[in-house]
Amino acid sequence: MQETGLSLPNWLREINAGQRRFANLSEAMSFTLDIVAHNCGISGESWEGAEGEWGGPFGAVVLDADLKLVAVGANRVVPSQASIYHAEMVALLLAQQRLGSHNLGALGDYTLVTSCAPCAMCLGAIPFAGVQRVVCGARGEDAEGIGFDEGDKPDHWADRLRARGIAVEEDLCRERALMLFEAYRARGGVIY
Amino acid sequence: MQETGLSLPNWLREINAGQRRFANLSEAMSFTLDIVAHNCGISGESWEGAEGEWGGPFGAVVLDADLKLVAVGANRVVPSQASIYHAEMVALLLAQQRLGSHNLGALGDYTLVTSCAPCAMCLGAIPFAGVQRVVCGARGEDAEGIGFDEGDKPDHWADRLRARGIAVEEDLCRERALMLFEAYRARGGVIY
Repeated sequence: MQETGLSLPNWLREINAGQRRFANLSEAMSFTLDIVAHNCGISGESWEGAEGEWGGPFGAVVLDADLKLVAVGANRVVPSQASIYHAEMVALLLAQQRLGSHNLGALGDYTLVTSCAPCAMCLGAIPFAGVQRVVCGARGEDAEGIGFDEGDKPDHWADRLRARGIAVEEDLCRERALMLFEAYRARGGVIY
Repeated sequence: MQETGLSLPNWLREINAGQRRFANLSEAMSFTLDIVAHNCGISGESWEGAEGEWGGPFGAVVLDADLKLVAVGANRVVPSQASIYHAEMVALLLAQQRLGSHNLGALGDYTLVTSCAPCAMCLGAIPFAGVQRVVCGARGEDAEGIGFDEGDKPDHWADRLRARGIAVEEDLCRERALMLFEAYRARGGVIY
């Protein structure tokens, strides 16, 4: 068997190889929003990536029960030429492969922190991934506000997750998440 | 950048490297159901794969407007240790990467043929992928009938796709698709 599928830039690979533990969920969300800025080239910092490596303005991380970082994802749709590689999907994929199971729920109590509420695809992916909690920054309507398509979600999507035993927290650091969307739009980032 | 993410067995890689054109959608579905049988080890034929390479009883292909095969996917959740790698996701990913765009709709008129109606995740993925048509074998309730979780789809999911300009055809070769589910269950295949 060979590997194929997801192109990760070196900076994201390096962050995934490191160790990190957060004091609380706000700190984890703040880190996730830093990932957003790096991923789409609006951080203002110099880093290895160039325009051809930029992804969309979305990031996500998976944390264990002690708030230790398990995996970091970012939107890699355009650079990977793959519409499935939203930030949440990348974070869940990397977490599962690092821990060695397609079902995180069989391994422990894991949290998905995402810079924006999940679109229809990522929402569908969450129960299968086995996380116990989802923490969201911006709302889906915020992403739609700059032109992204969030897809057709079931009504009361957060309650549907809760009915499956998955806790949902919304609007954490929403203001900064919104500022990043605006910065992305202002820079003329690709919308899809 | 390096590649990571999806483990494809050699037989699936070889089929993806070949050329094929179907006379009609029934023939394409029949081929897709052959993929299902191979993928989960219920075909009875000798092939390279062994038990450790088996995936779930789901397959999908992407066709161009002339019904030429663009990409072949199969459920690789367990062998890839990744809950996102449903058959439809794999087929869409391989098609997009082969054709060089995250949006098939920008390139032409493409059809997704899937052995079973899409779960909530794959349903969410379809509009983003840019296919113009989805053709389904078994129903979601058939997969649920042997214990698979299809997730929470929006009501009238097929009409939601049609409202986006995506044609949906259901129940093509459903009887054989159901037989494969039963054979998978009878063999004691993993359910998730």
